[in-house]
Amino acid sequence: MASKRQSAPPARPLRIVVVQAADAALRAQALNVGLQEAGYEIVASLPADMHLPEQIALLQPDMIIIDAESDARDVLEHIVIATRDERRPIVMFTEDDATSSMEAAMAAGVSAYIVAGLQAERIKPVLNVALARFKQEQKLLAELDDTRHKLAERKVIDRAKGLLMTRHGMTEDAAYQKLRTMAMNKNLKLAEIAQRILDVEDLLG
Amino acid sequence: MASKRQSAPPARPLRIVVVQAADAALRAQALNVGLQEAGYEIVASLPADMHLPEQIALLQPDMIIIDAESDARDVLEHIVIATRDERRPIVMFTEDDATSSMEAAMAAGVSAYIVAGLQAERIKPVLNVALARFKQEQKLLAELDDTRHKLAERKVIDRAKGLLMTRHGMTEDAAYQKLRTMAMNKNLKLAEIAQRILDVEDLLG
Repeated sequence: MASKRQSAPPARPLRIVVVQAADAALRAQALNVGLQEAGYEIVASLPADMHLPEQIALLQPDMIIIDAESDARDVLEHIVIATRDERRPIVMFTEDDATSSMEAAMAAGVSAYIVAGLQAERIKPVLNVALARFKQEQKLLAELDDTRHKLAERKVIDRAKGLLMTRHGMTEDAAYQKLRTMAMNKNLKLAEIAQRILDVEDLLG
Repeated sequence: MASKRQSAPPARPLRIVVVQAADAALRAQALNVGLQEAGYEIVASLPADMHLPEQIALLQPDMIIIDAESDARDVLEHIVIATRDERRPIVMFTEDDATSSMEAAMAAGVSAYIVAGLQAERIKPVLNVALARFKQEQKLLAELDDTRHKLAERKVIDRAKGLLMTRHGMTEDAAYQKLRTMAMNKNLKLAEIAQRILDVEDLLG
């Protein structure tokens, strides 16, 4: 489970996983020193491979930093899989200034994409901006999720109501009351009981 | 009208408005030189005051850059008003590394918040990342808008249907057919005719 992000400086150091692209070995030193000087805790430095998702799930870092000198689309693919079910702030330090790479990173959920900006004294504000960005995005995504969910629920309830009216000759009001009673009796949400009715009718054909 | 953002480098230089906080005079030179060297066109340097919204509407810049040494919340307030009806990519260069300032900037729609990063050679990648970020956010916001709209339409149609059923003793099917016929006859969307029915019933009480 992800811990809640705080606006105030965290009481404990942020726990960070660094993911290194194959070409980043020479840069790694600068990043690690910068992170440590800024008071962060590096819990692991990992290669971007098929084990990354399970490692991230195990370590539960507060943030993932990608260190990649050039095109990192293969790294991003692993990151996408590793954060699909549980989003985390992702910061990417790179020398790759191609617009297509930037867009791929945004689409993968990268909160900060920094070109040629790996100076120790800039790391802290960059990570803080990334956290603020991540929070803002999470809010927006949660809102989208919630609205989609409401729309889906409404559709399911309408379909179940229509089915009761058509197949069982009920009025709209009677169909709605029937759904409500069933939901209460089964201790389910209206949309859940509506879905069950649709499922059963599907089975009966 | 906003022009569409391109992935490929723009054929013409991006037209940029620079908004300067009162304390930014000494930094302004570095930013302007950097922007010009990177091939951007500065269409205006404006103070953050009540005239900003109309200036932005008039100039229609591709991007707004805020140059502010310290706390720029007053600047952000003017920017929010100026971009409320038509969002634009906003980049903020500042020395203010307070988390609350960062969060205020994110909430105001700032696509890139750069602390102590005003070096001429970094300007271009920073602006490009901001454009990619802005595009990504616009997509997400459009999706949220669309989903909200669908939900709202569905609610209005349901309410109008219910009203026809209750007040005019129609079955659900008859009420729906009535709405469809009215919509077709008036050349309106189903949700529009539904809203009119609700409005009239409101007036009639």
